Amino acid sequence: MSKKNNQDKLIIFALGGVGEIGKNMYVVQYGNDIVVVDAGLKFPEEEMLGIDVVIPDITYLLENRDKVRAILVTHGHEDHIGGLPYVLKQLNVPVYATKLTLGLIENKLKEAGLLGDTKRILIHADSEVQLGSIRASFFKTNHSIPDSVGVSLDTPEGSVVHTGDFKFDHTPVNDQYADLQRIAEIGKRGVLALLSDSTNAERPGFTPSESNIGKELIDIFRNAKQRVVVATFASNVHRIQQIIDAAMETRRKMTVVGRSMVNIVSIASELGYLHVPEGMLIEPEEVNKLPADRVVILSTGSQGEPMSALTRMARSTHRKVDILPGDTVVISATPIPGNERYVGRTVDELMRLGAHVIYGPGSVSGVHVSGHGSQEELKLMLNLIRPKFFIPIHGEYRMLRHHAMLAEAVGIDKENIFLLDNGDTVEFQNGSARKAGKLPAGNVLIDGLGVGDVGNIVLRDRKLLSQDGILVVVVTLSKQDGAIMSGPDIISRGFVYVRESEGLLEEANKIVSGTLQKLMSENVNEWASLKTNVKDALGRFLYEQTRRRPMILPIIMEV
Amino acid sequence: MSKKNNQDKLIIFALGGVGEIGKNMYVVQYGNDIVVVDAGLKFPEEEMLGIDVVIPDITYLLENRDKVRAILVTHGHEDHIGGLPYVLKQLNVPVYATKLTLGLIENKLKEAGLLGDTKRILIHADSEVQLGSIRASFFKTNHSIPDSVGVSLDTPEGSVVHTGDFKFDHTPVNDQYADLQRIAEIGKRGVLALLSDSTNAERPGFTPSESNIGKELIDIFRNAKQRVVVATFASNVHRIQQIIDAAMETRRKMTVVGRSMVNIVSIASELGYLHVPEGMLIEPEEVNKLPADRVVILSTGSQGEPMSALTRMARSTHRKVDILPGDTVVISATPIPGNERYVGRTVDELMRLGAHVIYGPGSVSGVHVSGHGSQEELKLMLNLIRPKFFIPIHGEYRMLRHHAMLAEAVGIDKENIFLLDNGDTVEFQNGSARKAGKLPAGNVLIDGLGVGDVGNIVLRDRKLLSQDGILVVVVTLSKQDGAIMSGPDIISRGFVYVRESEGLLEEANKIVSGTLQKLMSENVNEWASLKTNVKDALGRFLYEQTRRRPMILPIIMEV
Repeated sequence: MSKKNNQDKLIIFALGGVGEIGKNMYVVQYGNDIVVVDAGLKFPEEEMLGIDVVIPDITYLLENRDKVRAILVTHGHEDHIGGLPYVLKQLNVPVYATKLTLGLIENKLKEAGLLGDTKRILIHADSEVQLGSIRASFFKTNHSIPDSVGVSLDTPEGSVVHTGDFKFDHTPVNDQYADLQRIAEIGKRGVLALLSDSTNAERPGFTPSESNIGKELIDIFRNAKQRVVVATFASNVHRIQQIIDAAMETRRKMTVVGRSMVNIVSIASELGYLHVPEGMLIEPEEVNKLPADRVVILSTGSQGEPMSALTRMARSTHRKVDILPGDTVVISATPIPGNERYVGRTVDELMRLGAHVIYGPGSVSGVHVSGHGSQEELKLMLNLIRPKFFIPIHGEYRMLRHHAMLAEAVGIDKENIFLLDNGDTVEFQNGSARKAGKLPAGNVLIDGLGVGDVGNIVLRDRKLLSQDGILVVVVTLSKQDGAIMSGPDIISRGFVYVRESEGLLEEANKIVSGTLQKLMSENVNEWASLKTNVKDALGRFLYEQTRRRPMILPIIMEV
Repeated sequence: MSKKNNQDKLIIFALGGVGEIGKNMYVVQYGNDIVVVDAGLKFPEEEMLGIDVVIPDITYLLENRDKVRAILVTHGHEDHIGGLPYVLKQLNVPVYATKLTLGLIENKLKEAGLLGDTKRILIHADSEVQLGSIRASFFKTNHSIPDSVGVSLDTPEGSVVHTGDFKFDHTPVNDQYADLQRIAEIGKRGVLALLSDSTNAERPGFTPSESNIGKELIDIFRNAKQRVVVATFASNVHRIQQIIDAAMETRRKMTVVGRSMVNIVSIASELGYLHVPEGMLIEPEEVNKLPADRVVILSTGSQGEPMSALTRMARSTHRKVDILPGDTVVISATPIPGNERYVGRTVDELMRLGAHVIYGPGSVSGVHVSGHGSQEELKLMLNLIRPKFFIPIHGEYRMLRHHAMLAEAVGIDKENIFLLDNGDTVEFQNGSARKAGKLPAGNVLIDGLGVGDVGNIVLRDRKLLSQDGILVVVVTLSKQDGAIMSGPDIISRGFVYVRESEGLLEEANKIVSGTLQKLMSENVNEWASLKTNVKDALGRFLYEQTRRRPMILPIIMEV
């Protein structure tokens, strides 16, 4: 460990992940050394119209690019690795991750054409890495994807622990035990600050074990008289293993549909994280050649995503797989808040096709468990680590808040708990800590190839356009006397169905002509005020007639 | 009862309410007599951009207007009465409803200027009404609004029972017992067809009693050291009564905020359905004059609706009431699917203001129960009525399906259960039934004052506009030789933030000029093909550059 320089401070902040679920990015800086933990993406909220994904604002990192030593990645979920291609394009720093995580990252970097330029370092749970004055070590955790780790960062000011996403599953699948001994040992050595996953801080008790699902699946597979379709998160490799095991147990072959599912099955089995028995996998085309009760179809679409394989099957638009009456469909996932309606629709459509659908409210025994620890597990982590300071991370404000209350309950001083917004910094010096300044942090919106070129004005326009459409008003005026030479022509999109509203648009035309003529007679002829007047008069008229406020775009030309 | 004419058939269908939650409207026709049960509205789904509400398509009723004898209304919820102003404007028929229901309907009709023209008939649970050959009687049910009833329609072909929305609450608030004896008696006399509420058909067991909430509220009010804000559905008069009772019990005064809440408190207490102790109500302005622990604020906004009172308080933009640190906020409702995110945000904002918030996942003991019966209650209704035929209503397809399975489980023949889409008719003749033709049925979209003038084309345009915005391309060509006289000018809205994308738009300009010049040199000068070519070339270019597909509107003028 480097020796302490009395001028240097330890600073901790989040560029994403607090006050939200998604785009996790946490930063630990000691003096001139910056270590970043995770670089995730977030899926857009409803009001972010047309946006594909959201990533953190890394202005601070770019301004301090010579200080950034590494990005450490805790596990391979999109909200932890999905921002990497965008971040690495602007900031070429080494990426450290465990085997499966690195495999998934490399797959992403390949697609983005960044594989060759990125230094990638494979770590294990027992690796230690010196990053300037910061020494990073890791510990095995249990989560809904294999090879997840927590991070311990030893700095001259003290040790900072970041849990990554975790639960304590005492009967995990594939030996993915949380390393309780190592976590306890880290705690025993003394921890200055803990950053811990708050996703399930509102849930009392313990999250059930992943291995509960296995027995359930075997029962379902055994009782199904025809084919079984199982949809789950592509990244849930443990779940996929249990589906494979249940297929094996009930002598069914399996086919995989949906791009991300095909991807993960290939990467995870190549790297040894998924054990697929010889001869188990078949092509989707072969499904119809086997008896229906000998087949399992593993699919994406557990969130009812419109373009996913399950949704296409439900709508009978999948190229290779049809749902037949009597098939069983298992949705082995919980809807992420906001997706309930999509999932509900998919279930409806599957049922209309005659499928037997096993999903949330309809299934008494569970076919899904969360990958995040509930209150008792969060308290266990707090008590194992026994930090002096606590920063709840990875959650909406209410989750962070609940996590803070749990921390108080186990005895952490209220003044030593920091509830942060993205960009808020906490400074540690000589054993004490305080909230310091705020760094730039926020949403960078990605729309197609554009990174950050869609801001509030564009979103506000999209919102307006989506509510009542647009009217384009085209008029040509004479250069000499301002007389109307042609038009006004009104073109509407998304406002009314024109054929049914001819009268309305004719009236609108008259309003525009009248307004222009009046202005001309008053010798008002600056374009700006002509346009404003047309917009106001027409807007008022349309609101009176329809109670709608379409965007109005006057185009005035002179000849 | 009229005697049977052998030519006449009994027909039952839904114009709204099956395959959806909302816009309930069920129709029973015998010969030349049509009786309508309920006329509700539905709130728009995400993809219905800019739409305010959705009502049923009543084409069939309008085409048979001389046969429509009555609209019977089961209870005063929006999904049962909200369509009335639109329907009555086109179809002036008598409306039958119980006292509170009629009060709420009259409030609506007054706003729509239809009160004078509408024949309104007050019924009681023991009323009997002859409507042509159909005799209507009613039975008291329990639901989350007082004065709800089910309907029994005796026709020459047999008796049809419509449950309305119901649960069996054995310890209800305000004596709103379901009339078990009368329901049993109706069943004993023999019922041809039952139409029953499927909302909670996926939930096992019994729905807890409304009166459980009362004790919980008293505890919360008692423990709160400052003000208590309670948000619930405005229509839940029983809940409001319990909030008033808890306020009384804990010596707090109450103020009411939110237009619909003020409305319902006034109507329900005027009609005797709400018992407000003398001196209990205070104006919002008086809140600050009382000690904080003597105040309850009853509010709308339990769904996190952006403009509601609670949301405005959470954002500190309410004109009269601020949330202070230490206040307690109770959200006494469950988020309707799709609203989870809005509610979550409101909770976050309230917590950021320092409020203690009691809501769904955070509250161990419940502060909300459903108004709809669960599986055991649905089976109880089926066994009390013992119908020959069964039509599950009021639910998405998966709920109807589960309800059908419950009906099978209690012994109704599978062939005697009809799962309908809106518009599907079931014909009954000589004791047998069959699915017959399909009538027009669907969504009539209301946007502002427009009823039905927004259709698929307009919605598709709004969707396009919302995703990537619009580019308007204006060019003036010479009449003589087709040379470009002015432009191309490109105006973008909702596409990119122009200042950051000048280069792109300049390039786009060149693409348009180039395309036009090439066409002119090839003597292509029909406007339609000029426009199509500009659109295609520009669209291709923009997609290559940005992976976005804005709407492109070419405007070509000639001088």
